[in-house]
Amino acid sequence: RNKNNIYEQSFIQKKPIEHRETSTNIKNIIGQLFNTYIIVEGEKKFYLIDQHAAHERILYETYTNQYKQTPASQNLIEPYQLELNTQDMLLINEYIDEINRMGFDVSIFGENTVLIRAVPYFFNRVVEPSVLQVVLDEFKEKEYKGLSPKERFISSMACHTAIKAGELLSVEEIKELVNQLGNLDSPFTCPHGRPTIISMTQYELEKKFKRVQ
Amino acid sequence: RNKNNIYEQSFIQKKPIEHRETSTNIKNIIGQLFNTYIIVEGEKKFYLIDQHAAHERILYETYTNQYKQTPASQNLIEPYQLELNTQDMLLINEYIDEINRMGFDVSIFGENTVLIRAVPYFFNRVVEPSVLQVVLDEFKEKEYKGLSPKERFISSMACHTAIKAGELLSVEEIKELVNQLGNLDSPFTCPHGRPTIISMTQYELEKKFKRVQ
Repeated sequence: RNKNNIYEQSFIQKKPIEHRETSTNIKNIIGQLFNTYIIVEGEKKFYLIDQHAAHERILYETYTNQYKQTPASQNLIEPYQLELNTQDMLLINEYIDEINRMGFDVSIFGENTVLIRAVPYFFNRVVEPSVLQVVLDEFKEKEYKGLSPKERFISSMACHTAIKAGELLSVEEIKELVNQLGNLDSPFTCPHGRPTIISMTQYELEKKFKRVQ
Repeated sequence: RNKNNIYEQSFIQKKPIEHRETSTNIKNIIGQLFNTYIIVEGEKKFYLIDQHAAHERILYETYTNQYKQTPASQNLIEPYQLELNTQDMLLINEYIDEINRMGFDVSIFGENTVLIRAVPYFFNRVVEPSVLQVVLDEFKEKEYKGLSPKERFISSMACHTAIKAGELLSVEEIKELVNQLGNLDSPFTCPHGRPTIISMTQYELEKKFKRVQ
């Protein structure tokens, strides 16, 4: 199913999202700007994609679909031992299945310790096992109030395992990100509601350069 | 003399042009968009350059400086014979020195004929000898009224020998264009007054993506 045609929609113009299943409008990946935004050329329009927000949205949907498909995972050479306080251990106990379905292999090792044998793996990048502690910490923050526990885990995991702003990406990584984003149902905002894509038409650019009146 | 620091100036913001002679702010050439605009990354800012307008400005200054420096020229394998009407022959007669200093080698061959032995040459591109007829035609247009005859020739030549919008450029050609533009005294508009460079700061982009408030 090809949904790259989402790039036909401009986030700025706040058009409703429609999917036309037949064609892609991405013609060219131009490059990466400030190691943070990906510039994509479309048909009479160009796009700037926030690599972090876009990846966050991709991961959010991947994690949400965890029951349907297993995300990529990589075994650690040495298991990573993480000591947790009682509150975090309770969380782990309750959500261990969800966490493991996100690509971790976490097992309870003692009263206050978990053993991490595998971590999520995306774009040739291995998620640091210590990210689990960050995710547990964020779970308790008020930022996510109103979300279900599962949603909180997913949002926090998506944020902390996504490509960061300021990371230099290879051409292959850029292509993968752009393609994955094109396959989403809700590609235009990250889970926090920030835009992932902004666009400008060739016509708008022509006006700026006074090529047209 | 390094003036690449012009890219520190934003055309859109209409700041006065200042030259700081010590450093360049171009960090990266990102690529070419719609085969028409060059995307350049600077320090906390990015630039879109209209390749035609920019080249027009470069050539305009080159032709204006014709008495100081000879522009690149290439001999034709076969001399090109151009038949002209009486009015055009009078123009040629009057401005043959100026035309030849722009990179042509034009000589009068008969009552209504000139022989073109060499043409201007830029960016590995040879100017078509027939451009001389276009330039002569435009000389008589009212578009340029208010300009001196020399100015009219120069403006028309710059317009008709510049890289066009829609031309795919090589990385080397892009670099040369960007560097040459950076060395000009008036890089921000083409001879017709259209902008050559527009810019956006990283901060403005961050606002669009709601990375900052």
